[in-house]
Amino acid sequence: MDYRAVLEEVAATARSAAGVGRVAEYIPALAAADPTAFGFAVADLGGQGGVDGVGDWEAPFSIQSVSKVFTLALVLAADGEGLWARVGKEPSGSPFNSLAQLERDRGVPRNPFVNAGALVVTDRLQDLTGDASSALRDFLRAESGDPRVDFDRGIAASELRHGHRNAALAHLLADHDRLANRVRTVLHHYYLQCSITMNCRTLALAARFLARHGLRADGTRLLTRSEAKRVNAVMLVGGTYDEAGEFAHRVGLPAKSGVGGGILAVVPGRCTLCAWGPALDPHGNSTAALAALDAFTTLTGWSVF
Amino acid sequence: MDYRAVLEEVAATARSAAGVGRVAEYIPALAAADPTAFGFAVADLGGQGGVDGVGDWEAPFSIQSVSKVFTLALVLAADGEGLWARVGKEPSGSPFNSLAQLERDRGVPRNPFVNAGALVVTDRLQDLTGDASSALRDFLRAESGDPRVDFDRGIAASELRHGHRNAALAHLLADHDRLANRVRTVLHHYYLQCSITMNCRTLALAARFLARHGLRADGTRLLTRSEAKRVNAVMLVGGTYDEAGEFAHRVGLPAKSGVGGGILAVVPGRCTLCAWGPALDPHGNSTAALAALDAFTTLTGWSVF
Amino acid sequence: MDYRAVLEEVAATARSAAGVGRVAEYIPALAAADPTAFGFAVADLGGQGGVDGVGDWEAPFSIQSVSKVFTLALVLAADGEGLWARVGKEPSGSPFNSLAQLERDRGVPRNPFVNAGALVVTDRLQDLTGDASSALRDFLRAESGDPRVDFDRGIAASELRHGHRNAALAHLLADHDRLANRVRTVLHHYYLQCSITMNCRTLALAARFLARHGLRADGTRLLTRSEAKRVNAVMLVGGTYDEAGEFAHRVGLPAKSGVGGGILAVVPGRCTLCAWGPALDPHGNSTAALAALDAFTTLTGWSVF
Amino acid sequence: MDYRAVLEEVAATARSAAGVGRVAEYIPALAAADPTAFGFAVADLGGQGGVDGVGDWEAPFSIQSVSKVFTLALVLAADGEGLWARVGKEPSGSPFNSLAQLERDRGVPRNPFVNAGALVVTDRLQDLTGDASSALRDFLRAESGDPRVDFDRGIAASELRHGHRNAALAHLLADHDRLANRVRTVLHHYYLQCSITMNCRTLALAARFLARHGLRADGTRLLTRSEAKRVNAVMLVGGTYDEAGEFAHRVGLPAKSGVGGGILAVVPGRCTLCAWGPALDPHGNSTAALAALDAFTTLTGWSVF
Repeated sequence: MDYRAVLEEVAATARSAAGVGRVAEYIPALAAADPTAFGFAVADLGGQGGVDGVGDWEAPFSIQSVSKVFTLALVLAADGEGLWARVGKEPSGSPFNSLAQLERDRGVPRNPFVNAGALVVTDRLQDLTGDASSALRDFLRAESGDPRVDFDRGIAASELRHGHRNAALAHLLADHDRLANRVRTVLHHYYLQCSITMNCRTLALAARFLARHGLRADGTRLLTRSEAKRVNAVMLVGGTYDEAGEFAHRVGLPAKSGVGGGILAVVPGRCTLCAWGPALDPHGNSTAALAALDAFTTLTGWSVF
Repeated sequence: MDYRAVLEEVAATARSAAGVGRVAEYIPALAAADPTAFGFAVADLGGQGGVDGVGDWEAPFSIQSVSKVFTLALVLAADGEGLWARVGKEPSGSPFNSLAQLERDRGVPRNPFVNAGALVVTDRLQDLTGDASSALRDFLRAESGDPRVDFDRGIAASELRHGHRNAALAHLLADHDRLANRVRTVLHHYYLQCSITMNCRTLALAARFLARHGLRADGTRLLTRSEAKRVNAVMLVGGTYDEAGEFAHRVGLPAKSGVGGGILAVVPGRCTLCAWGPALDPHGNSTAALAALDAFTTLTGWSVF
Repeated sequence: MDYRAVLEEVAATARSAAGVGRVAEYIPALAAADPTAFGFAVADLGGQGGVDGVGDWEAPFSIQSVSKVFTLALVLAADGEGLWARVGKEPSGSPFNSLAQLERDRGVPRNPFVNAGALVVTDRLQDLTGDASSALRDFLRAESGDPRVDFDRGIAASELRHGHRNAALAHLLADHDRLANRVRTVLHHYYLQCSITMNCRTLALAARFLARHGLRADGTRLLTRSEAKRVNAVMLVGGTYDEAGEFAHRVGLPAKSGVGGGILAVVPGRCTLCAWGPALDPHGNSTAALAALDAFTTLTGWSVF
Repeated sequence: MDYRAVLEEVAATARSAAGVGRVAEYIPALAAADPTAFGFAVADLGGQGGVDGVGDWEAPFSIQSVSKVFTLALVLAADGEGLWARVGKEPSGSPFNSLAQLERDRGVPRNPFVNAGALVVTDRLQDLTGDASSALRDFLRAESGDPRVDFDRGIAASELRHGHRNAALAHLLADHDRLANRVRTVLHHYYLQCSITMNCRTLALAARFLARHGLRADGTRLLTRSEAKRVNAVMLVGGTYDEAGEFAHRVGLPAKSGVGGGILAVVPGRCTLCAWGPALDPHGNSTAALAALDAFTTLTGWSVF
């Protein structure tokens, strides 16, 4: 399929939304982003498998919570269904950093994409690998084919300094004996993972195993078909903060967003998409990326519904 | 496609689950159901469009909350997106009959499938038609082709007598000026809708417009393609009580369940499914129906993910 | 003691607060009150027991939730400690009409002064007397010595029409099997009780049994010394909505307020006080009455602390 | 007054309750306490002011949360009413270590006796003194006249190691910019304060300023009469965890309890009481101390109600 015409139309639509909303401002490095930037990439599985994009699709940004879908996949690959004893798979109905939910459910996060859930996943990945953040970085390098994928240690340090809420979540998990590693170790790796810098092109490439029912770039299997389906299901019900219903409504694809402005989406069996724009709506999702994905599914009819 | 082999295997799997769990006991008419009953139907869109089934697929049961997907469609058909100002489309993260959520959100239910949301939809349908329950019954007769589809007035009366929690929800909605009709009127029609008696065959047939992107049985359009997609999206994130994530995980289809033991599911562009078994899991979903749908998607690979 | 000088000074202070805040507007009869009205009465136990007042201390007003302290006393007089199995005695930490609290605690209200708790008390009083509202009226007539104390049936009817939130609370209680009588019966008597019209003079007189450690006006015993102490304790921790801490802080007396603008307070062993002003602060307590009681305890040093 | 007969009767009653319940077990030093120990002291203001006691009234125990009433007094003495902008004075309606309440109220604790509130008070005392824990220790030495009052650094270190929930509270406060000092500094002083070891005799002596309307042991004024009254009011509505209503009901005195098993109570204008027994009821209050205070007020009639 020739995506050029679609990409141009997606870009035209999304640019009118770019700049609407507010750039994440809780740390200086994110606050400095250009709110009108916009990029979009599609990584196809058909034929020889190519990737194409439009706008600032090769401009680097902080992947932030998009990292959570990859750490989940790495833990599922090792543990299978065992993970679900420690973290739920239900939509949260609460903000992504809610302490009330975690307290009510005695330290079992609603799903792996709320911050508490991702801390549990990182804790487990640390057990499995001895270095949770390097494990993620190496995986992303391999899947994207780009050896330059790396942490932004300045961002990680800045997040740690301002990260009292995540520290509160981690201590509450520890209070319920839900962490195998020390709170500071888990936070260290969590922030490094969030700080990884990629672009629309490399993120779309790195996620193709989700569209390919679990097969990695080199043809080996990361996840069973069933596990890959399940990651997509969790993305659909919980990947876009407390706007998951609205996102399913408008876009209708499994997706994961981050406060760096990126949104990764999956069209199972067909392709992966990555849209980016730093300005966020009140729920923390990029307005431009949301508009772009909406336009893409409308033009192609490739919603799952 | 020849469904016979699939149906037989689905039945074999589901029967081992039938009877696990507890029949709804809050009113005598539901409590009397045989917990080991099981039925399953598939209504295809391909070729001439046929329907086939297995087990007790023509045994009548109370559709209960499965009715909510049809009343939602009828209101969307008339109002379009206007409805979403009165009811959300996010997963609830709370039990289906939670007063706390409704109080916190000042009378705006999280989605049209929690009880409060369905009361708002019924209130609106009453405004549009003057007789919300007859409007639903007539629609179900037309789509299923079965003129015998009707209310069970004994069940409706029994529900009303025991329905203090729904009355509390309706009064709380009224307290926030969210109802145009009187509380008693809304409850009257709500319970009649829930009391409608159908079977797997007729329910699967009646829902084909959701698989057909909005087209009714007679070829006319009920919903736009976009609206039909949106109903499916809401079903996926909120159609199976607070087990939506688990259901998406296991089955991966838009679905709506009821405490009568029925679960209706949609394979967009392909077919509709209706599974039934009266024994419920702790979340209120039929254990046999869930097992049947799980088996069906595993055998066919027809999850949306 | 000669209260004249104190009364004059209390009045001077309170009048500067009178009119600050908003008159209750949820029903027309309350909304029509003069926000600048103010009255204050003290009913002494010493010597021959006299009552004196200042301002509009004989102007009639709707006692509203002040009624709750009398219904509580009547039920305790009959049941003793048995009541506490059905209703708690802890401060609520939530608004007086919270459904979330009642849902979380499975139909056991936090204390007898939140609306749900008063509905439970009324339900029990109905069982004990066969006519809960007349029982209260007759008691208030006897204690105040004023046979004109009576219901305002117009107000009661108006409250019932607008009382969706109380109806929601009552149905939620019924859903948890916490009411022995029908929802409509309980609400009927509840609203009649709230509608009773009295003035500062008669309310202060009627409550003297709480200052007299349980002895009624005619010298017979209504409550044991221990029970009377306990009613005062519940008033202190829960008598002024979710401002109980602030009230204890400023005034330091057991008290019960109503949205009609009245606040009844007890100085154990010494006297009762009733202050009134229709304009309410954001918590629902009369600003003028609060200022008056604050001034009174400052001038006399008669806080319990 | 001669307290001997009262003390003997109190002891007889309380000993039958001693051992009922469970000793705090979250750190080894507390878990090792003898559950059947019991002590009671009364420090009179009349005449020359004496102190007497019964049982293990000179056995040392960890004062734990009883410390909160003294740190509150020290901050009020310096800041007056300014503190109440940072912490409320309402009963909590939630457990003493609830994160949900703190999250809902955006970092403003309900009162100074829930853990989050005490952390805010300690943070302020640190600003005022440069060494919050030494300031408290020195004050307790001066008021009790016992220079041996000191920290138990082993207990403080043990609490810090197990104190993930308090760390979560402190980080959540910091997330809302409610702390002037670093999280670790505040926790350090908080745990030292809780670790102070005293006995019934010295605690009752140290608190006499609350019964004396603000006057210290040396006759100087710590608090204004109004401030002293307000500390007593906060103790009554929030001093005994989420059992404040029950405590007011049974005992009817301002009081503060700790998980070390001590309960300090105030009879304004007359005396202070300290009861101790390590076994706790499910709310965290000592069963023996509660029984002792109940017996004392019943025998003397010295409730505030």
